[in-house]
Amino acid sequence: MSALTITGKTRLFCIVGDPIVQVRSPQVYTEQFAAAGIDAVLVPMQVPADRCAEIIPALMALGNLDGLLVTAPLKARVAAFADRLGPTASCIGAVNALRREADGSWTGDMFDGEGFVRGLLAKGARVRGRRVLQFGAGGAGSAIACALANAGVQSIRIVNPDPRQTQSLIASLAKAFPECDVQAASDDRSDIDMIVNASPVGMRSGDGLPGDPGAVTSDTLFGDVVLSSTPTAFIQAALDHGCRWADGRDMHSGQIDAIMNFFVART
Amino acid sequence: MSALTITGKTRLFCIVGDPIVQVRSPQVYTEQFAAAGIDAVLVPMQVPADRCAEIIPALMALGNLDGLLVTAPLKARVAAFADRLGPTASCIGAVNALRREADGSWTGDMFDGEGFVRGLLAKGARVRGRRVLQFGAGGAGSAIACALANAGVQSIRIVNPDPRQTQSLIASLAKAFPECDVQAASDDRSDIDMIVNASPVGMRSGDGLPGDPGAVTSDTLFGDVVLSSTPTAFIQAALDHGCRWADGRDMHSGQIDAIMNFFVART
Repeated sequence: MSALTITGKTRLFCIVGDPIVQVRSPQVYTEQFAAAGIDAVLVPMQVPADRCAEIIPALMALGNLDGLLVTAPLKARVAAFADRLGPTASCIGAVNALRREADGSWTGDMFDGEGFVRGLLAKGARVRGRRVLQFGAGGAGSAIACALANAGVQSIRIVNPDPRQTQSLIASLAKAFPECDVQAASDDRSDIDMIVNASPVGMRSGDGLPGDPGAVTSDTLFGDVVLSSTPTAFIQAALDHGCRWADGRDMHSGQIDAIMNFFVART
Repeated sequence: MSALTITGKTRLFCIVGDPIVQVRSPQVYTEQFAAAGIDAVLVPMQVPADRCAEIIPALMALGNLDGLLVTAPLKARVAAFADRLGPTASCIGAVNALRREADGSWTGDMFDGEGFVRGLLAKGARVRGRRVLQFGAGGAGSAIACALANAGVQSIRIVNPDPRQTQSLIASLAKAFPECDVQAASDDRSDIDMIVNASPVGMRSGDGLPGDPGAVTSDTLFGDVVLSSTPTAFIQAALDHGCRWADGRDMHSGQIDAIMNFFVART
């Protein structure tokens, strides 16, 4: 990797959120641009949520800013500034990336879920046709359920502590992906062949499973959003049964691929 | 120089203007920050002049943006957004740098002139007490005349094609620096001991002198704003007479020192 040099010609991308010090995207995407031979950098921008309505349109008016990544707490708010939304963003009303098109308009989409699916596919897993049990229906969980429906899973059963959030997601998915059977999970988990942890359980050492996985066989596919250098209890269950699995690191890699593809393949 | 890495903690500075591809500041100041052990980058931002009133306050609201450089055509417009102005900026109503203070307020100042004076001083020249003949009273010329008055020159005589611009500058200087005698130049240039070219003459090869320098002796001090790798006719005249001189490169170096000092010495 040659030393990064920023010139007047360098194109800008940014990640907006508040706080912003914790994000890894500036290093990751700046390196991705360099590796792809693109003269661009991605810089952090701390955008206070209560100034979002002024700041986001102003950033989009910068002539040399070609894209934004969006992190907490702005993912839903920033969706309003896109001229059009991709399928997952439309379904859940939130974005984590925006790009400027050649005509100057802006397209937003949400790649948390696509990253998760790409992470599974990169591990050689089949996703299409699966009968999914998913723990968690928050921001990441909603994006993942959309991406799974978009990837052709047969059904999704949701376990989530907030029933209103669950029903809201089910209604959105029913509208956007009517061919996918989405319901709140019952106690009968006998026909499940894929288990998703989109809850925070596993982030703290000592956390157990996010809930009852039902009957696991070696064909059960495991996907976990938790970023951990040692296996979570959830991933350990996959290992114990000899199952395929992808974790937060795979999701993260999958998302980088998906977002770079989105940024580079501008219309 | 180690390889630049941008992280979520990296502080932001930017240069705003339109066009922006020609600016050298991103490379120059990003290297300066690295050399000073400061985790910060300076990035170019193309700000259309007609969006300035929305974009500049929005950039100043970014929680991790600590300073802006300002180039054409925004130097006068951006002055309005500072909470306070330094002496040169107050005098001419334009800024080329803004910094965020510890209390969140913003200070603006104009360093085009201070850079010019620093460039002369760095070459071992005496500026205080000089009787100056200055060609040009535009943006750079106004900043230079202010900085010369602030540095204690005795008098300034101005040659400039636009008499209204000249009178406006004379009025501003008379108010801000009443001890400095500033007038439009007459044909009598006999007591001049410093000559300043703040006009564009010399930017094109084949350009001659910006005007009649009067009687030059070896004590005459020459200062030229033109950036040129070979001597301009103006600098050649200094060389021919064995005079001290500073050119656009010295001014540029002096300005980097002045602005880095301004950015780093936040209150």
